[in-house]
Amino acid sequence: MSIGPGVYAPTGVFVCFEGGEGSGKSTQSRLLREWLEAEGYAVVLTFEPGDTEVGRQLRRIVLSPETGELSDRTEALLYAADKAEHVDTVVQPALDRGEVVLTDRYVDSTLAYQGAGRSLAVAEVEQVARWATHDLRPHLTVVLDLAPEHGLGRFEERDRIEGESVEFHERVRAAFLAMAAADPEHYLVLDARLPVEEIAAEIRAELTPLLERAVRGVSQP
Amino acid sequence: MSIGPGVYAPTGVFVCFEGGEGSGKSTQSRLLREWLEAEGYAVVLTFEPGDTEVGRQLRRIVLSPETGELSDRTEALLYAADKAEHVDTVVQPALDRGEVVLTDRYVDSTLAYQGAGRSLAVAEVEQVARWATHDLRPHLTVVLDLAPEHGLGRFEERDRIEGESVEFHERVRAAFLAMAAADPEHYLVLDARLPVEEIAAEIRAELTPLLERAVRGVSQP
Repeated sequence: MSIGPGVYAPTGVFVCFEGGEGSGKSTQSRLLREWLEAEGYAVVLTFEPGDTEVGRQLRRIVLSPETGELSDRTEALLYAADKAEHVDTVVQPALDRGEVVLTDRYVDSTLAYQGAGRSLAVAEVEQVARWATHDLRPHLTVVLDLAPEHGLGRFEERDRIEGESVEFHERVRAAFLAMAAADPEHYLVLDARLPVEEIAAEIRAELTPLLERAVRGVSQP
Repeated sequence: MSIGPGVYAPTGVFVCFEGGEGSGKSTQSRLLREWLEAEGYAVVLTFEPGDTEVGRQLRRIVLSPETGELSDRTEALLYAADKAEHVDTVVQPALDRGEVVLTDRYVDSTLAYQGAGRSLAVAEVEQVARWATHDLRPHLTVVLDLAPEHGLGRFEERDRIEGESVEFHERVRAAFLAMAAADPEHYLVLDARLPVEEIAAEIRAELTPLLERAVRGVSQP
C-alpha cells in the first residue's frame, strides 16, 4: 500500500476541482461541462462526497450536525469508503469509456481537510485514500483559491465542516496551495475572485491539449 | 502505517471471540461475562460491527440486502470505520479504566471475511484495519471452530454475508485457523460442537492468568 507515482487513466480525461467553501467549484465545473458538451465531448459531472447510493448515506453521516463527535480515523475512513465506491462505480467506468470526468472534490480535499485540518498524520490519511482510489490521479486539478473569510461569508447555515474555525480553513487553503506547488504539471491555481468568465477561459485553455485522449459523444459529428 | 508487533493495553484485559456464523460466540461471551461479574470484575460486552451510534448506521449499510453490490474496498473501509469508532469510544476507554472488554468479532473477522473471502490482498486490508484500531490487539482471541454446514444451517434468513457460498465460509474458517496457528500465545481454538459448559470452562481456565491486570468492580469486595 505504498504511495507510488500515481496512476493516470490511459483513456478519458479526469479533471478535479478543489478549493474552499464558496470558491465557485460548482459554477466552474458546470460551465466547463457546458463547453465540453458543446464541443461534442461525452462528460460526466460528479462530486465527492456522496455521488453514489452508499455515498449519499455516508455524506449524511459525516456532514450532519446530529452525528456529533466522530473519531478522526472514523471520519477519514468514511470519506475513503465514499471515494472507493465513487472511483469503482462512477469515475473509472466513465474513463474506460473514454469520457471526460469532472469531479467537484477528490483526494486532495481529504488530505487538506482530514490531514491538515485535524490531528492525523497526512501521510497515513494519504495512504488510506490512495488505496481506496487505486491511486488514480486527475490529469488536471483546478484549485480555486480564496481566503476563507471571503468564501465562508456566503452561507447562512453551515454544516459540520463549514462550522470549523477560520484557522482550520486557513490550514486547508495552505494545504491545497502546497499540493499544487509540489506538482505544477498537474495543477492549475486560479484566484477565485477573478471574473467567472475569465476563470472559465483559463481552465479551457489549460484543458485543451489534454482533450485528445477523450472521445466525442455519439450525438455529435 | 506498517504492521508492527501489535499493541497490548497495559491495563484492562481485552478478549475477542471469533468464528463463523452460528458457532456460539454470543452464548460464550455472555457466559463469560456472567462469570467475570460474579467474580467481581467490571466487564464491557460489545461487538463488531455496529456497537456505536455511527457503527449502527454502517452495519445497516454493509449487511442490508438492499445495499446490493458494494465495491470490495468500500466494504473493507466501512468495516474499518466501524472499528475506528469502536476502539476509540468503547474498547480503549474501558481498558483505560482497567476493565475486561469482551468483543464478539474484531480485526480477525475483517481479515477472514474481507481478505480471504473476497478478492482483496489480505496484507492491504490488514494495514487499513490496523491503522483504524491503532494496532490494538486482544490479549486473548477465542476461536470457536465449526464447519460452515453446521453453523449456517441454524438460520432461516441470511443477511448479505451469510448468504455467501459454502466455499466462501470454508475460506473464512481456514483463515481463522491460520491466524491462530501463527500466534498460539494469543489464541485459543475450541471445537464449537463441544458442550456449552465444557467450552466455557476452557475459556475461563485460559483467561484466569490474564485477569491480574484487570480491576474488580467497585460494588464487589
